[in-house]
Amino acid sequence: MSLIVQKFGGTSVGSIERIEQVADKVAGFRAGGHSIVVVVSAMSGETNRLIELASEIQEHPTPREMDVLVSTGEQVTTALLAMALNKRGVKAKSYNGSQVRILTDDAHTKARIKEIDDARLHADLKEGFVIVVAGFQGVDEHGNITTLGRGGSDTTAVALAAALKASECQIYTDVDGVYTTDPRVVDGARRLDKITFEEMLEMASMGSKVLQIRAVEFAGKYNVPLRVLHSFQEGPGTLITLEDDAEMETPTIAGIAFNRDEAKLTILGVPDMPGVAHHILGPIGEANIEVDVIVQNVADDNTTDFTFTVGRNDLPRAEEVLKKVAEEIKALEVRSDNKIAKVSVVGVGMRSHAGVASQMFAALAEVGINIQMITTSEIKISVIIEEKFLELAVRALHSSFELEEEPNDENADSVI
Amino acid sequence: MSLIVQKFGGTSVGSIERIEQVADKVAGFRAGGHSIVVVVSAMSGETNRLIELASEIQEHPTPREMDVLVSTGEQVTTALLAMALNKRGVKAKSYNGSQVRILTDDAHTKARIKEIDDARLHADLKEGFVIVVAGFQGVDEHGNITTLGRGGSDTTAVALAAALKASECQIYTDVDGVYTTDPRVVDGARRLDKITFEEMLEMASMGSKVLQIRAVEFAGKYNVPLRVLHSFQEGPGTLITLEDDAEMETPTIAGIAFNRDEAKLTILGVPDMPGVAHHILGPIGEANIEVDVIVQNVADDNTTDFTFTVGRNDLPRAEEVLKKVAEEIKALEVRSDNKIAKVSVVGVGMRSHAGVASQMFAALAEVGINIQMITTSEIKISVIIEEKFLELAVRALHSSFELEEEPNDENADSVI
Repeated sequence: MSLIVQKFGGTSVGSIERIEQVADKVAGFRAGGHSIVVVVSAMSGETNRLIELASEIQEHPTPREMDVLVSTGEQVTTALLAMALNKRGVKAKSYNGSQVRILTDDAHTKARIKEIDDARLHADLKEGFVIVVAGFQGVDEHGNITTLGRGGSDTTAVALAAALKASECQIYTDVDGVYTTDPRVVDGARRLDKITFEEMLEMASMGSKVLQIRAVEFAGKYNVPLRVLHSFQEGPGTLITLEDDAEMETPTIAGIAFNRDEAKLTILGVPDMPGVAHHILGPIGEANIEVDVIVQNVADDNTTDFTFTVGRNDLPRAEEVLKKVAEEIKALEVRSDNKIAKVSVVGVGMRSHAGVASQMFAALAEVGINIQMITTSEIKISVIIEEKFLELAVRALHSSFELEEEPNDENADSVI
Repeated sequence: MSLIVQKFGGTSVGSIERIEQVADKVAGFRAGGHSIVVVVSAMSGETNRLIELASEIQEHPTPREMDVLVSTGEQVTTALLAMALNKRGVKAKSYNGSQVRILTDDAHTKARIKEIDDARLHADLKEGFVIVVAGFQGVDEHGNITTLGRGGSDTTAVALAAALKASECQIYTDVDGVYTTDPRVVDGARRLDKITFEEMLEMASMGSKVLQIRAVEFAGKYNVPLRVLHSFQEGPGTLITLEDDAEMETPTIAGIAFNRDEAKLTILGVPDMPGVAHHILGPIGEANIEVDVIVQNVADDNTTDFTFTVGRNDLPRAEEVLKKVAEEIKALEVRSDNKIAKVSVVGVGMRSHAGVASQMFAALAEVGINIQMITTSEIKISVIIEEKFLELAVRALHSSFELEEEPNDENADSVI
C-alpha cells in the first residue's frame, strides 16, 4: 500500500478518450490499494494554441502573463481527469500549482521549484482522494503564477514524489521504456529493466528524449525511483534508480546513445600560448552558444589546432564569431563541418573496467570507421565520426557489447 | 483622478482583435489619469467549449471540477489583455479570483461573494498598475476555486467597485445603454441617461438582459454607480444610480418592459376556504417552478378562481402538478394558456403619482386591448394580455407616456 506519483504527458491526455483511458489506469492502481498522486500536462496542442494567441498580441509577451496564460492548459486537464475518476467512483480532486502550493522562484517561464507544501496533499490522501496536480506550474512567494518551462511536468512529478516520499515516480510516455539504443537504428535494441540516474542523464543528453534531464537530475538528487512506462500498453517499463554495489562488479554497458545534431569547427594554426582556449571559447560562450566536445592538438611548430563541436543550428553564428577571433589571435584558418555525428557508449560499469574504451575503438575500426574526436567522462565514452557512418557505428557497438542479450545477473524489479 | 472598475463581457473580448480594441479603450482612460481595474469574461465560445469537454465525460460533472475547468476561460483573457496593455506601454497585471482573493461560499457553480481582500489591489493600483481581474470566479475558505454562475462577471465588477470604493463601475456591452423599451419594437425608443437601481431591476427582470439582476442588486445595496456603455462605440451610456429627491417630484416613467416568456394557469371552482392559495402554490414551489403574477377572484357561490403565471418552459410540469392538486381539493377544472405576454410600466416617479395606472389602462383600452391580469409594485404596474397584442401595447404605452422625448428636468451626468 504505497504512495505512487504518476505523470501523464500531453499526448497521453490529448483527447477525452485518452483521459478516460488514463482514468481507467489510475483507478486500477487505486483499486490495488495504493495512494495516488497524478501529475498531468496540458492536452496536446493546447499549450501551442495558447502561445499562438499570445504571439498575435506580442512577439515577446510579458513573461508573467505568459505563465498566467499557459498554466490554464494543465488546469483544464486536471479538472477533466478528476471528473473521469469521479465517474468511476474514485474520489479525486484537482489541484493547480498554487493550490498545492508548489513554491518556486520568480523566474517566469523557467522557474525552479523551491519548496512543496505537502500538508494539504497528505490530508486529502489520508481521506482516500486521488490527487490530480497540474504539472509544469507553481507560484512564487508573492502568489504570482509561474511555470517551469516546457517539459516541466516531469519535474513537478519528481518533486512531488520527493516531497511526499513516494515509493515510486512513474512517468507514462509513448514508449515502453528506455532502450539500449534507438530501435529505429538497431533492430535488436532491447528495453532496459533498470538504468542508473547517471546513465539516464547521459542517454537523455544524447537525444533519448524519454525524460527531461532536469527531472532525472532531481530524481537522482533526492533518490526518487523513477519508472518510465507506456501510457496505453502493459509492461514493467524501465526503472531508473541508484546503482547497487553488486552491479558495479560487472562491466555492464547500459546503452549506445547518439546525436546527429552536431557540427564541428576547427581553428588552425593558432599561436600556442597560455590562455588560448579561453581566447577562443570566451566569445563563443558570450554569444550563448553551447560547446560540446573540445580537442586541442599541439603541433611541433609552436602552433596549435583547436577543434570543438556545437549544436548544428548554432554553426553559422559560431563560425562568424570564430572568424573574428581568428583574425584577432592571428590564426591561420577556420574550417567547419556539419556532416558529423556523436556516438557514445554509456554505462556505470566502465568506471571499474578499463577495457571498454579499447573495445569501442576496436569495434569501430573493424567496420572501417575513422574516429575524428574522442571525449570521455566517468561513465561515457563519446566519439565524433562522419555522419554517414552513424547507423553502422551504432549497430557495430550494440553488437560488440552484446546489448541484444539480457544480462544474467540482472533481476528486474517488477513494477509496483 | 478617480478609480473606475470596467467590465468587458465575452463578446467584447471574443478575439485578439477585440482584446486589442479593449486595450486601446482602457489605455485611454489610464492616460486620462484614472486608476483602472478591468474585469473580463472568457472569450466568447470558450466557456461553452470547456463545458462541452466536461459533458463528454459526465452528464453532471462534479461541481468542484466544473469550476476548476471553466475558471480557466477568464484567466486566459486576463493574461491576453494584460499583454495587450503592456504592449501599449501601460503597466498591467492579471489576477485570478484566488489571487485577488475574492472569497466566496463553497456553493460550486453558483457561489456568492462573501468578502474581497483589497490590500494587494490597492498596493498595485498605487504603483500605477492597471489590474485585470478574471470575472465570474472566486475561492472558498479552503482555497477551492469557485464560480459565481453564468453572467457572474458583472457581479465581480460591482463587488470589486464596492470593495475598492470606486467612483463608478462601467459595464461594457453590445448596446449603448438602457432604453425606454426594446428599440426593435418601438422605433422611437430612447436611450436613458439615468435610471435608478430599482427601475433597472424591474427592467432587467422583464427581459432587458443588459445587466445581471444580481449585479444590479449588489450595486444598489452598496450604492455603486453603474454605467452601461457600448464596448466599441463612443457615448455616455446609461448611468444606474440612486434616485435623487428632485426627480421624485416628477412622474417620470423610466420605460416599458415586457416579457413573452409567460404562460397562464387557471384552476376553476376551488372551494373557498382559508389556506387555499397555499394548497395550490405549495406543490408548485416544491416542483421548483417560479410563479410570477397571481390573481384570485372570489365568486358568489363560495368557490374561487385562482390564476397565476409561470415561465413558458415550466408550463407542462406546472399543469401536471396542478391537475393533481385540483383532484385533491375537489376543484372543477384546470385551464392553461401560453399565448400571453406581460407588459409593464416602470418608474420610481409613480410612487407619488396615482395617475400612472389609470393612464396605462386608458392607453390600452384606446387601442382595444383587453387586460387579463393586473399586478402592481411600488414602482411597476404590469398587465397580462394576449401575446398577439404585445407590440401594439408597448407602442401605445411608449407613446402615451411620451417616452420618445427627453424629459426637460433631467441633466445627464457626463461620463467620467
